[in-house]
Amino acid sequence: MHDATIDRLIQHLGKLPGLGPRSARRVVLHLIKRRESLLTPLIRALRDVSEGIRVCGQCGNIDTIDPCTICSGPKRDHSMICVVEDVADLWALERTVAYRGLYHVLGGTLSALDGVGPEDLKMPVFLDRVRNEKVTEVVLALSATVDGQTTAHYIAERLVDQNVSVTAIAHGVPVGGELDYLDEGTLTTALRARRPV
Amino acid sequence: MHDATIDRLIQHLGKLPGLGPRSARRVVLHLIKRRESLLTPLIRALRDVSEGIRVCGQCGNIDTIDPCTICSGPKRDHSMICVVEDVADLWALERTVAYRGLYHVLGGTLSALDGVGPEDLKMPVFLDRVRNEKVTEVVLALSATVDGQTTAHYIAERLVDQNVSVTAIAHGVPVGGELDYLDEGTLTTALRARRPV
Repeated sequence: MHDATIDRLIQHLGKLPGLGPRSARRVVLHLIKRRESLLTPLIRALRDVSEGIRVCGQCGNIDTIDPCTICSGPKRDHSMICVVEDVADLWALERTVAYRGLYHVLGGTLSALDGVGPEDLKMPVFLDRVRNEKVTEVVLALSATVDGQTTAHYIAERLVDQNVSVTAIAHGVPVGGELDYLDEGTLTTALRARRPV
Repeated sequence: MHDATIDRLIQHLGKLPGLGPRSARRVVLHLIKRRESLLTPLIRALRDVSEGIRVCGQCGNIDTIDPCTICSGPKRDHSMICVVEDVADLWALERTVAYRGLYHVLGGTLSALDGVGPEDLKMPVFLDRVRNEKVTEVVLALSATVDGQTTAHYIAERLVDQNVSVTAIAHGVPVGGELDYLDEGTLTTALRARRPV
């Protein structure tokens, strides 16, 4: 029984990940009560992103410039490319401040079920970069899922004759994780990848 | 390590109820990937609400017109006013389609702790409406909390000499609720309010 204008906003917000119709209604009321302090700045921030953000033609990252800040960064190590599935993974790795190389964002994983093939993952662009720039190491940072590992294997195979070392991030017990809460798969992997202390 | 434009949007979204920084990041990526189908319509819907929504001067509801659709509705029962704390509660009652009267939205509850007094709850406007329009029943639909019930008592007292019947919505076992999952307070209330079947 709300007004159509409010209804439309509730419907759009309800499509966002993590928001259902109930929380969308709460968000709308929250925004209406804080028009100046929240709603107006939010509209401006959304418009800036909508108008300013582009996908980097080199790595698939999103940024206001193309090539992106990372690809065009003079302090980044251009001899390393880390392959991730999604921009969210790139952000997660950047938050660690432990990696200073470049990226390739696949935009997904190979999936026979969903009909995702190599060309969907911008493999040609990636292979060109590995060939033509002086890349010495490719780090595979893909999910420890069937599709993620299938994709990792596919990429590793395509790089066999490229004179580049291919590595993968370690899978094992998360830091702070308790052993008896972990699934058998993770524990088995952690056991097999044991190292001398 | 994201761009400042994206960062600003994440910060604004992270202030919304139910969204933290993590889910705000997910929402931003979701929106950027669906610029045409989601981001653009969302910006338009937010702008429409920001520009079109006003608070009803009579009841405190929000709508694109003032007096609101309910206050100016010819099919609504103008002899009843239901008192609610918030527009969200008004929406909840409207969804039931069980109430056809008018509303008064307090915008909160009396609270000594938070320094909320009667004038903050638009009581003068409300009492004027009860006096000057032909209101025969005031339905109190306030939370079953200490502040909610204090406010209900306060309003009931102010209406004693107004020649209007004052009722309150029933508290008890929620429909579909299982007894052994309910708190003692609700069960006690339900027991005391028992009725012949």
